[in-house]
Amino acid sequence: MPSFSRYLPILTWGRAYNRTALSNDLVAAIIVTIMLIPQSLAYAMLAGLPPEAGIYASIAPIILYAIFGTSRALAVGPVAVVSLMTAASIGEIAASGTAGYAIAALTLALLSGLFLLALGLFRLGFIANFLSHPVIAGFITASGILIATSQLKHVLGIKASGATLPEMVTALVAHLGQTNPITLTIGVLSTAFLFWVRKGLKPLLRRLGLGPRLADILTKAGPVAAVVITTLCTWGLDLNAQGVAIVGSVPQSLPPLTMPGLSPELIGQLALPAILISIIGFVESVSVAQTLAAKKRQRIDPDQELIGLGAANIGAAFTGGYPVTGGFARSVVNFDAGAETPAAGAFTAIGLGIAAIALTPLVYFLPNATLAATIIVAVLSLVDFSILKKTWQYSRKDFVAVLVTILLTLAAGVEIGVATGVILSIVMHLLHTSKPHVAEVGLVPGTEHFRNIRRHEVITEPSLLTLRVDESLYFVNARVLEDRLQDRLASAPEIRNVVLMFSAVNSVDYSALESLEAINHLLKERGIGFHLSEVKGPVMDRLATAHFLSELNGQVFLSQYQAWKTLVPAAQTAAAE
Amino acid sequence: MPSFSRYLPILTWGRAYNRTALSNDLVAAIIVTIMLIPQSLAYAMLAGLPPEAGIYASIAPIILYAIFGTSRALAVGPVAVVSLMTAASIGEIAASGTAGYAIAALTLALLSGLFLLALGLFRLGFIANFLSHPVIAGFITASGILIATSQLKHVLGIKASGATLPEMVTALVAHLGQTNPITLTIGVLSTAFLFWVRKGLKPLLRRLGLGPRLADILTKAGPVAAVVITTLCTWGLDLNAQGVAIVGSVPQSLPPLTMPGLSPELIGQLALPAILISIIGFVESVSVAQTLAAKKRQRIDPDQELIGLGAANIGAAFTGGYPVTGGFARSVVNFDAGAETPAAGAFTAIGLGIAAIALTPLVYFLPNATLAATIIVAVLSLVDFSILKKTWQYSRKDFVAVLVTILLTLAAGVEIGVATGVILSIVMHLLHTSKPHVAEVGLVPGTEHFRNIRRHEVITEPSLLTLRVDESLYFVNARVLEDRLQDRLASAPEIRNVVLMFSAVNSVDYSALESLEAINHLLKERGIGFHLSEVKGPVMDRLATAHFLSELNGQVFLSQYQAWKTLVPAAQTAAAE
Repeated sequence: MPSFSRYLPILTWGRAYNRTALSNDLVAAIIVTIMLIPQSLAYAMLAGLPPEAGIYASIAPIILYAIFGTSRALAVGPVAVVSLMTAASIGEIAASGTAGYAIAALTLALLSGLFLLALGLFRLGFIANFLSHPVIAGFITASGILIATSQLKHVLGIKASGATLPEMVTALVAHLGQTNPITLTIGVLSTAFLFWVRKGLKPLLRRLGLGPRLADILTKAGPVAAVVITTLCTWGLDLNAQGVAIVGSVPQSLPPLTMPGLSPELIGQLALPAILISIIGFVESVSVAQTLAAKKRQRIDPDQELIGLGAANIGAAFTGGYPVTGGFARSVVNFDAGAETPAAGAFTAIGLGIAAIALTPLVYFLPNATLAATIIVAVLSLVDFSILKKTWQYSRKDFVAVLVTILLTLAAGVEIGVATGVILSIVMHLLHTSKPHVAEVGLVPGTEHFRNIRRHEVITEPSLLTLRVDESLYFVNARVLEDRLQDRLASAPEIRNVVLMFSAVNSVDYSALESLEAINHLLKERGIGFHLSEVKGPVMDRLATAHFLSELNGQVFLSQYQAWKTLVPAAQTAAAE
Repeated sequence: MPSFSRYLPILTWGRAYNRTALSNDLVAAIIVTIMLIPQSLAYAMLAGLPPEAGIYASIAPIILYAIFGTSRALAVGPVAVVSLMTAASIGEIAASGTAGYAIAALTLALLSGLFLLALGLFRLGFIANFLSHPVIAGFITASGILIATSQLKHVLGIKASGATLPEMVTALVAHLGQTNPITLTIGVLSTAFLFWVRKGLKPLLRRLGLGPRLADILTKAGPVAAVVITTLCTWGLDLNAQGVAIVGSVPQSLPPLTMPGLSPELIGQLALPAILISIIGFVESVSVAQTLAAKKRQRIDPDQELIGLGAANIGAAFTGGYPVTGGFARSVVNFDAGAETPAAGAFTAIGLGIAAIALTPLVYFLPNATLAATIIVAVLSLVDFSILKKTWQYSRKDFVAVLVTILLTLAAGVEIGVATGVILSIVMHLLHTSKPHVAEVGLVPGTEHFRNIRRHEVITEPSLLTLRVDESLYFVNARVLEDRLQDRLASAPEIRNVVLMFSAVNSVDYSALESLEAINHLLKERGIGFHLSEVKGPVMDRLATAHFLSELNGQVFLSQYQAWKTLVPAAQTAAAE
């Protein structure tokens, strides 16, 4: 039973479900539903899909996540970055608006879901850790710029496309002459209104005497107001006839049963993008879920989250959706609105189902420019260059990783940008460990503590050389220690004993073992004792399986102070003889 | 002047050159020349090139290495593994025996030379460290098997080709019926004779009363004896007419001036193989050079070695050769024969030059089967599966890397084999660091030393949790510490202070800094003190640039014992209140 409820968290919270939780979840669901309708339409447009795909992608996935996911507040559905990545990867295979494009989106969701599910079942969630925080921050910022730029064509009412910033800008400039002034007016006014709602509405409502909760909800409903007003204007003034692009007819139906394309060629083309989308989506989702869980002292289980997101994506694939993940904005709204359990998500799904059947005719006259404005305002909050300044101050390596990620994401697209960022981070880390810091240490007076002779006032003994190796020893740096030791010995013939202080050596691989054996051989030949101190348990266990310890021309000391006590009097006696 | 002689080591040893050194170098040169004639012909055959290419590849490269290299005993020229890699990479571009094939070999040497030179000038020799010892050992063993198998066709006197073991075996079996019995007799007898020379001749000669030095030289001349005897037999019995394949006419000339192909297409095809050949060749050469230098307490400079090998390969490219490196067998012979300076190499070059002009007609009737026998006997000494046993005992990760390298080299070819071995080693290392060992430590009684509570009898204090993190903190493992700490705190509400003992933390990147900030925030919220101890100089320097230290909800202690002294009485007082 415990293992069964591990894979089905619903069994845990479902049992304790009561009326208070129900009413809190219902209120949250209503607020989130209102917010999700325009957002879902907008992100579907960003992904190059028909508007209903955004709504469908919010229904089955939410329910499946509610069953399998561990976060109490996460809201799963289309999000900006994943929508952009979907457009980028499918755009190379089929033209937007064709049946092939929609089928490719389903396949991408299926592959992504299967990959996430497999990671979760094999408990491989930690591989998401290979995306460093700075790389993610840089990637999100660059994606925000790309997304905002990609929406400018809708604001201008022109046709222009491109996967990278230079391509987009070139296309925009080339078609600038075809700008539709009415569309531009709607777009600019909507954008300005939404920015004002974000920044100025809440303080205004508070000053008008509204409670904080109500002010908050009204602020969140801002996009809905923009949608309603611009739709009414377009309908009333027949702006559609004057070239204003509108959403048009959206089928009135619950999510249909759909079949992803399964041709080996399509799968081959989409496998790598699916992996990237999965990992990026998982990182975004899990960080949102962790942030929200920490506020209520709850824990989430990243491996179970993979299963929840995997199920959600597989669900999207068979119900007319496209890749989904836990979104930041919608989850925060859900959390702030008081959602207590994943049931809030299920109620949201019901709300969206009703919207899909009943409300879709109402968005016929909704201008694309309004949707573009909601996207632009939402994603510009993702753009944050402060990570460049912070990493510049703290670590140039991290700075380089961020800068390269941002520039390549903008100039060469999302996939190349994030992949290069990850590889670069790993290579720089390896290069760092390839040249380890090796400190010569001495005794801090009045203590049993040993520190670097260059940084601290310490006691040393000429016949005893103690080197603290500040890195795990493995093939990349195995030879370095040998070289340093030879250099040091060449300049100090009085050395009779060498101690390697292993307090910072967390592993010794086979290449490094060979190197230690070579050092032992060298020192033995010269009649110099070779000792180790402060060898950690796991390292000692490993060394004990080799001949090295039995052939060691010296001892292994528990602490460096013991080595000092043992070797220093001996060295002094030897000198006196 | 010092920087000038850094790039021209000849200026250092050339100044101290005297008559003793000259006579020692001359003797060594004569011995090495005799040994190199059949070996050069054989390796050229292995590389799929005409026999003279092997001799040419031994002349200019030796002289150039003598000028730029730092090893006193290294002998540069064609070697078995690099010859195999040359055949594998050019075989995909042109058919053996065509002009295109020879030109591609020159281009490969040029690219390899330029790459080595660039690495040396930018002092990037350490990148060779990314090849772990086990991966190299596995690769050399598998290459030995591949090379020996590739020569069986010459022993059988049949035509068969292939780049991988399955291909070779299939081709051999398919053509087995065409075996030439005379060729087979020559091949088998030569192989048996050469094995006997290796194992049995030296003890026999010693028993016959010869001095050790002379016995050694006669043993080294074994291949020459096999060449002379089988050539005389083939000539005298006219075996050529009976289908025994022979070397045939070799031009009588000094190395010609040649021009490598420089078409972008050819360079594109050969760039990656050239990089692999360069790195493998450099690793082989530098390990031979270091072994020999250590015996005479000399040092070599790996970055200058790159320049020496780069110059040697560029020389090979313009004088009818192919990629070269420092060979194990020839260098050991050179060393044992008493070579004192790189001048021995220059004299060997002169000897080979004379051979190229005067002796080439004499090898007209040399059977290919004899050359194949010398290769088989030479490379089978490279085959050593003991690395599998050694790594199995010491470290399963290293074992997996060796096994995969061996299997893939045999089954998919040298390039895929070694590249996969390197990547796999790196990935396994990263995965290891992604799940760091975190030990809870206590005070070893009677000392100021702290060790793992699970392995040692130590004193602990319930209100103080001290965790020793056994890994540098970076993006791959940044979150792990946070999770461990939360788990531990959940089970022990009495904890008032947490100390992270940073003795094994060698770096903290930006992602890990954010994680430490999150931990600090979490502990501050719960009213728990957060302290660090034994933070190393470089890590402290880095942390000092961030806000983290000023916001720390506690102190940074020089040693863990100081933290204990400070926090434990405080904790006890608090408990008494």
